[in-house]
Amino acid sequence: MKKDVKKNITIYDIAKEAKVSPTTVSRVLTGNPLVKESTRQLVLEKMKELDFTPNEAARSLTTKQTNTIGFILPDITNPFFSQVYIEVEKKALDLGFTILLRNSMSNSEVESAHLKEFTEKRVECIVFMGGRINKVQPSEEEINEMREVVKRVPVIMVNGKMKDVNCYRIRTNEEEGIRLTVEHLVSLGHKKIGLIGGVKGITSLDLKTAAYRKSLKAFDLEVNPNWQVPSGFSIEKGREAMKQLLSQKDLPTAIIGINDLVIYGALKECREQNISIDNFSFVGFDDIFPSDIVHPSLTTVNHNYDILSSEIVKIIQNIKVGKASKKGKIINTKLIIRESTKEV
Amino acid sequence: MKKDVKKNITIYDIAKEAKVSPTTVSRVLTGNPLVKESTRQLVLEKMKELDFTPNEAARSLTTKQTNTIGFILPDITNPFFSQVYIEVEKKALDLGFTILLRNSMSNSEVESAHLKEFTEKRVECIVFMGGRINKVQPSEEEINEMREVVKRVPVIMVNGKMKDVNCYRIRTNEEEGIRLTVEHLVSLGHKKIGLIGGVKGITSLDLKTAAYRKSLKAFDLEVNPNWQVPSGFSIEKGREAMKQLLSQKDLPTAIIGINDLVIYGALKECREQNISIDNFSFVGFDDIFPSDIVHPSLTTVNHNYDILSSEIVKIIQNIKVGKASKKGKIINTKLIIRESTKEV
Repeated sequence: MKKDVKKNITIYDIAKEAKVSPTTVSRVLTGNPLVKESTRQLVLEKMKELDFTPNEAARSLTTKQTNTIGFILPDITNPFFSQVYIEVEKKALDLGFTILLRNSMSNSEVESAHLKEFTEKRVECIVFMGGRINKVQPSEEEINEMREVVKRVPVIMVNGKMKDVNCYRIRTNEEEGIRLTVEHLVSLGHKKIGLIGGVKGITSLDLKTAAYRKSLKAFDLEVNPNWQVPSGFSIEKGREAMKQLLSQKDLPTAIIGINDLVIYGALKECREQNISIDNFSFVGFDDIFPSDIVHPSLTTVNHNYDILSSEIVKIIQNIKVGKASKKGKIINTKLIIRESTKEV
Repeated sequence: MKKDVKKNITIYDIAKEAKVSPTTVSRVLTGNPLVKESTRQLVLEKMKELDFTPNEAARSLTTKQTNTIGFILPDITNPFFSQVYIEVEKKALDLGFTILLRNSMSNSEVESAHLKEFTEKRVECIVFMGGRINKVQPSEEEINEMREVVKRVPVIMVNGKMKDVNCYRIRTNEEEGIRLTVEHLVSLGHKKIGLIGGVKGITSLDLKTAAYRKSLKAFDLEVNPNWQVPSGFSIEKGREAMKQLLSQKDLPTAIIGINDLVIYGALKECREQNISIDNFSFVGFDDIFPSDIVHPSLTTVNHNYDILSSEIVKIIQNIKVGKASKKGKIINTKLIIRESTKEV
């Protein structure tokens, strides 16, 4: 008989038992943040006691699913981010989702505002890129805020992470990208290889630097700290790094950029100083669209944008239907060889 | 006594007279699309009869303002659009607005879907770029749909227009940009000037072509139809146009692009064919960020993005508070002179 009893239990029975309104029970079911934590616990307890399992169809009737996804990224004018974003948007719209894009400029306060907005709007999940999730040591506040957010909304971190924050992670295999780059340069006869750009304390530099050192060591090549010039992520910061590099006597023959933008800056600096760019081989990272049109066209590491975006959307879909996804996913890269790398 | 009577008229009186619910009256006031047109007309009639003017404060209480702006553009990965978008986003967020970005890929059906979504979501206004508003002859369906939309939601068209559609318009002074370009080239001694890219039937080509011809004529220069090669708006289409141009015997000494992207393609095509880019001067349009890093860096027309975006946001603000804005606004351009233009 238990089966029958279970079938007949409705949210009205739960409401009566818990001495709350049916609306409150419905809110608990739909994860509405307006319910006090103590009330939520009480309702869940009663559900358990009465062996209540919400009928999926009834649930989707009461759950006002927003079908909305929040997307936080540093700066949509950076083609790396716009490339990932538009692929996700296309695929998600096809599935009936609405996307809210927010630029954070990697500013922690701006990120907080967006997280707050998304939580209040009850988005179905948040895709997060850049900013705090790329910090080697995010602040306590940043971590705590994320912990609160993931209690209410599933978060997908792309190319980033945060300790003890329960979320989905998809990341480019940056180490592999750097390894492929070093192997390519070595195959062209390069023995002196530098790395420019990035900021200390931001994981993409740490990851890439570790992979760069490891790869050099694997080939018994010199690891010269003077050839590692962290400066930032923009074209302008690439110019600064190249300027600093060029002020030295002993120069590398090949230069790897933390991204494509810093290499654009490096090329510009060489031209400004009337130094032939043929003195160096250059490799970028990201394969953003101008890398095919700068001169020389840039050898660079491509993120496999199509796979990366498909994996993001796959998780979103799973969240939507309550299906489990793997918490971590690594996307391999591919090296795109163009004119900027040549034999020494 | 009329004044007093007027003061005391409320939506409840209107509801009674019109034999509808107060909610319906409120919906008519707030422009809610759920009200049947015949009901709406009846309610408006009764309001007129009773000389009813909604109190502004009361109205904003009943009006559930969404504070949301819809933004439709062709493709956020094109730096021209991302540049305009991010400036508007920054300024609008500061004012408490939420922005919904939608990419249309200039596909009319996709635009329709976004317009429908935005109308249903009751956004406070729609910013529209590209696609149908750049067609010299949009279809009847496209025009009718826009007419229906603007009845419910104010629309701001940026660099586009649509006949007999009542909306706000902000546009770059494209004619001035082309005039400045031709004047600059003439000052460097150029007499043979071509124009590549664009698509016939898309207004930006028509506007620019007219200005180009007019400027050439003003300097008594040859208007050679072979030097006008419409092909499209992408890097690839720029390559195609340059290929076609290079297949001719009599070549121009200077080439103007419909935008920066087609010139990137033209530079690429010259390199592919081992033709020195020093044979030509090149001028683009838009001043997107890679134009400062391609080699030679590109002389191009800048849209004054800051002013353009400020004007968009100014109209949004005015719509919000019910203040009138000028229906048309023209933004002047500035010519950014870099390495790609030189004396003949």
